[in-house]
Amino acid sequence: MKHYKTICFDLDGTVYKGQEAIPESVAFIHTIQRLGIEPYFITNNSSRSISEQHQKLARLGITTTEQHIMTSAIAGAKYCAQHFKGKTVQMIGETGLREALLAEGHTLVESDGEVVIMGIDHEITYDKLASACLAIRNGAQFLSTNGDLALPNELGLVPGNGAFTELVKASTGVTPTILGKPGSFMLEIIQQRSGASKEEMIMIGDNYDTDILSGIRYGIDTVHLQGGVTSLEEVAAKPEAPTYMFKTLAEWIYTTI
Amino acid sequence: MKHYKTICFDLDGTVYKGQEAIPESVAFIHTIQRLGIEPYFITNNSSRSISEQHQKLARLGITTTEQHIMTSAIAGAKYCAQHFKGKTVQMIGETGLREALLAEGHTLVESDGEVVIMGIDHEITYDKLASACLAIRNGAQFLSTNGDLALPNELGLVPGNGAFTELVKASTGVTPTILGKPGSFMLEIIQQRSGASKEEMIMIGDNYDTDILSGIRYGIDTVHLQGGVTSLEEVAAKPEAPTYMFKTLAEWIYTTI
Repeated sequence: MKHYKTICFDLDGTVYKGQEAIPESVAFIHTIQRLGIEPYFITNNSSRSISEQHQKLARLGITTTEQHIMTSAIAGAKYCAQHFKGKTVQMIGETGLREALLAEGHTLVESDGEVVIMGIDHEITYDKLASACLAIRNGAQFLSTNGDLALPNELGLVPGNGAFTELVKASTGVTPTILGKPGSFMLEIIQQRSGASKEEMIMIGDNYDTDILSGIRYGIDTVHLQGGVTSLEEVAAKPEAPTYMFKTLAEWIYTTI
Repeated sequence: MKHYKTICFDLDGTVYKGQEAIPESVAFIHTIQRLGIEPYFITNNSSRSISEQHQKLARLGITTTEQHIMTSAIAGAKYCAQHFKGKTVQMIGETGLREALLAEGHTLVESDGEVVIMGIDHEITYDKLASACLAIRNGAQFLSTNGDLALPNELGLVPGNGAFTELVKASTGVTPTILGKPGSFMLEIIQQRSGASKEEMIMIGDNYDTDILSGIRYGIDTVHLQGGVTSLEEVAAKPEAPTYMFKTLAEWIYTTI
């Protein structure tokens, strides 16, 4: 395999499953770190703050810096800063999104926002959704951190932010800009941070429709890992194959040569 | 115009707008009642109980009986009784739906229902939606009182039950059975109650996509009233015209001959 300088990992399903580390992935991360490569971690989860995500990785034995963690909340806040600087932002979401927006200097409002951004919110209410719909019908820009329709919890698959986004889209008739995977805005930020060329970047994940597709769309190589969201059969049926397909990362003997 | 024995009125936009009666409609209702016709009232609103709806009509000067009021909550409860007798029912909704389900003798559960039925719920929570999605993924029958994507309130258009239904549909991949208009299940119940033939029935409403379409689908005559949801131009662009189009019901000189 060719040498990659900027190696990007999806988190849930790739580095860990819920609260448990995937040992082959952690071992692979340790190997590349010994060889001088600091990996990037990319998640559609907007609810955790970067420091919470950093602590979770530390608990699973992975040492990294907050600059190497990219969430759809960070992507949302940066996208607002690039495109809607100075506009009021109305959010539906949790700590991660709130902290990311405040860190970029945005002014948060509860209603009549000029930008509406949605992330998962376990404290969702009718009034929050109504207020978002009213702002969007009034001309607010409509952003969403991700299009994940369902998320696993201990009981099964429950609604993700993408399902709430569908509600607002259906009610208003306005289609949002989706910032997380399969969009490639998070990879774009990482490329700027790392200074690598696209040829030197690779995206690793278990979900074809988010992880692999974001890499393909951004024009970088991809690794599909089995045992997660997308089965080998499902990947085989896709129009464009990942660059590599592994059962686990134990199959990738990483060298710097 | 021909003589109709069973005259069905949509409520909001047809008999009243919010808290205000539409005088021509109220006058028409008084006229036909003097001539011995007891009209039926049909609403997609599942949140009010029949007695609350009855009181609202009384406040606006309309005397009727609870048997002449049909809501999507009543339709939902009756549909469950006809098709899923004895199965546990998990509902998202308000007083109207709860009372209707209990009146039909259904056993209500908070999770793992064999039937999930959705109506508008201004006290919606993440957990209610998650629990509905889990039950549906586990094989529960999925019903919804109506597909109304947006409802007017004093601030503008806010999400209706149809938007929440879209959320659950998007997250689970399961399409619900919609019981309210433009479905014709409510008209079917009214026909059974009144004993009229379809030729003797007519449906009056301001919304083409719900009121008029339910009548067309059921195979009865329809009256479109202007000044409500669907404009005259929009009606003209539809593939099938209502039987009659009036500015107000003052244009219909009702006789029993």
